[in-house]
Amino acid sequence: MYKAKVIVTLRPSVFDPQGKAVENSLKSIGLSSVLDIRIGKYIEMEIETESYQEAEQVVIEACKKLLSNPVMDDYNFTVQEIQSERSIK
Amino acid sequence: MYKAKVIVTLRPSVFDPQGKAVENSLKSIGLSSVLDIRIGKYIEMEIETESYQEAEQVVIEACKKLLSNPVMDDYNFTVQEIQSERSIK
Repeated sequence: MYKAKVIVTLRPSVFDPQGKAVENSLKSIGLSSVLDIRIGKYIEMEIETESYQEAEQVVIEACKKLLSNPVMDDYNFTVQEIQSERSIK
Repeated sequence: MYKAKVIVTLRPSVFDPQGKAVENSLKSIGLSSVLDIRIGKYIEMEIETESYQEAEQVVIEACKKLLSNPVMDDYNFTVQEIQSERSIK
């Protein structure tokens, strides 16, 4: 059993209106030292595969097909093995 | 100048319908080895403060007041110093 942590961010060249809105909100509540904000997605998934390589492939396929927009987004991830009930036995 | 990376996640006890929907979508496109997905937010911000401690305080205040829901969310973050045009001079 593997656990993947994926971060999907807008490419630096893409304008981030959500980030801009949050930045303005923070300034309006007095946090004027925040200069720039960009907002992305964080995804945690558990994957049941035989090997680390297979788990990585599943994450890449999930990112390419569903989690990220290939035109606007970048993604990066880490995969680590975790103890599952099955592997403890 | 400091850069903070913040991850806001739903508490483990809170049901995540968005994650469940993505999990079902991944299964429907053949990625059946994905067992569990939870989705959170990833926020990058640049902060202009005198010290690391002040930058941390700004991030904590932003998380408490705006970025996370104290009832349903957990947050964690890292802060690191970065080179800005001002600090290079």
